[in-house]
Amino acid sequence: MSDEKSTDNIVWHNHHVSRERRAEQKAQKPVVLWFTGLSGSGKSTIANAVDELLNRNSNHTYLLDGDNIRMGLNKGLGFNEADRVENIRRIGEVCKLFTDAGLIVLSAFVSPFTEDRAKVRALMLENEFVEVFVDTPLEICEQRDPKGLYQKARKGEIPHFTGISSPYEKPEAAEIHLKTAELSVEEAAQQVLDYLRTHNYIS
Amino acid sequence: MSDEKSTDNIVWHNHHVSRERRAEQKAQKPVVLWFTGLSGSGKSTIANAVDELLNRNSNHTYLLDGDNIRMGLNKGLGFNEADRVENIRRIGEVCKLFTDAGLIVLSAFVSPFTEDRAKVRALMLENEFVEVFVDTPLEICEQRDPKGLYQKARKGEIPHFTGISSPYEKPEAAEIHLKTAELSVEEAAQQVLDYLRTHNYIS
Repeated sequence: MSDEKSTDNIVWHNHHVSRERRAEQKAQKPVVLWFTGLSGSGKSTIANAVDELLNRNSNHTYLLDGDNIRMGLNKGLGFNEADRVENIRRIGEVCKLFTDAGLIVLSAFVSPFTEDRAKVRALMLENEFVEVFVDTPLEICEQRDPKGLYQKARKGEIPHFTGISSPYEKPEAAEIHLKTAELSVEEAAQQVLDYLRTHNYIS
Repeated sequence: MSDEKSTDNIVWHNHHVSRERRAEQKAQKPVVLWFTGLSGSGKSTIANAVDELLNRNSNHTYLLDGDNIRMGLNKGLGFNEADRVENIRRIGEVCKLFTDAGLIVLSAFVSPFTEDRAKVRALMLENEFVEVFVDTPLEICEQRDPKGLYQKARKGEIPHFTGISSPYEKPEAAEIHLKTAELSVEEAAQQVLDYLRTHNYIS
């Protein structure tokens, strides 16, 4: 965008498609919906339900979760401290690219540590990060155990498993707090939509 | 999407927003336009010009280049062999996420090695990777030297600099070959648009 560049560059750099134009084209305010909660809490299910509602509302979205991140961008990362931090850092950077592209991005990862989530928030512009705490009691998550992970963790087969052998640091001031024990998936998703409408992210 | 899941999950997983729906919503066929060429060849300038034309054509795009990748997602990667490979790998994975989201993604990186480019192509679905060879003679790139990098490389201040102390492996079968010595930026950009129209990526 510098005026110092050659004439050729000026012409085109001035016409650089801005983040504002990308968002305008999509008639929405880009934002990261950062779903956090225990394994089995319903993060991915609720995020998919929100995604569906947004899609029906003609919004432009993308959903990041283990399915498209773990074996792709974050392939090779393990579960030690450094890799855990790097895992969330990369997801945060990808969220930033997606909001820059004008999209509403939904991310659904356990992300148990306050510091890691705060770092992602710090990457974003103001009001571009909305933390969604999927608050499901550990007992219920463990009863569901959709992937049999709690059972393995109890047997000691998975080290540092959140809620069992590693802490989950609850968000203290999440923009959206979903108390799933009192809500159906549809109601939880609707609560997120209502927030986005009230705060003018979508119309 | 498995039928083995609980009833709650089936309902919502069946309603999962598919890549087809994301693309349909945007009335385009997602694709990666992978610009490759020497430093100073005009990759970024031409990619920005293509991006501008696509935006005017109501297409949904995003442009990845050093500006949004180097200090973000790929911060911390250096220039040794392993980091060079990892750099392009991550960019490829992000391209994959963006096409999955329904976008046309333009990537502008030197990406001098055939093997690295082939790996990115292999990540994508068929016809979802279009290699754009920005073919500018080294002499011209070095004359331009917009960032003074060639001068530094000649002095030995930048090791492994493509074209000077590290090879550039020309694409042998790029879908689009831009001979920039014979084209203006506008003409080069138009050649890419024509390709996308002819091949039904855009209308």
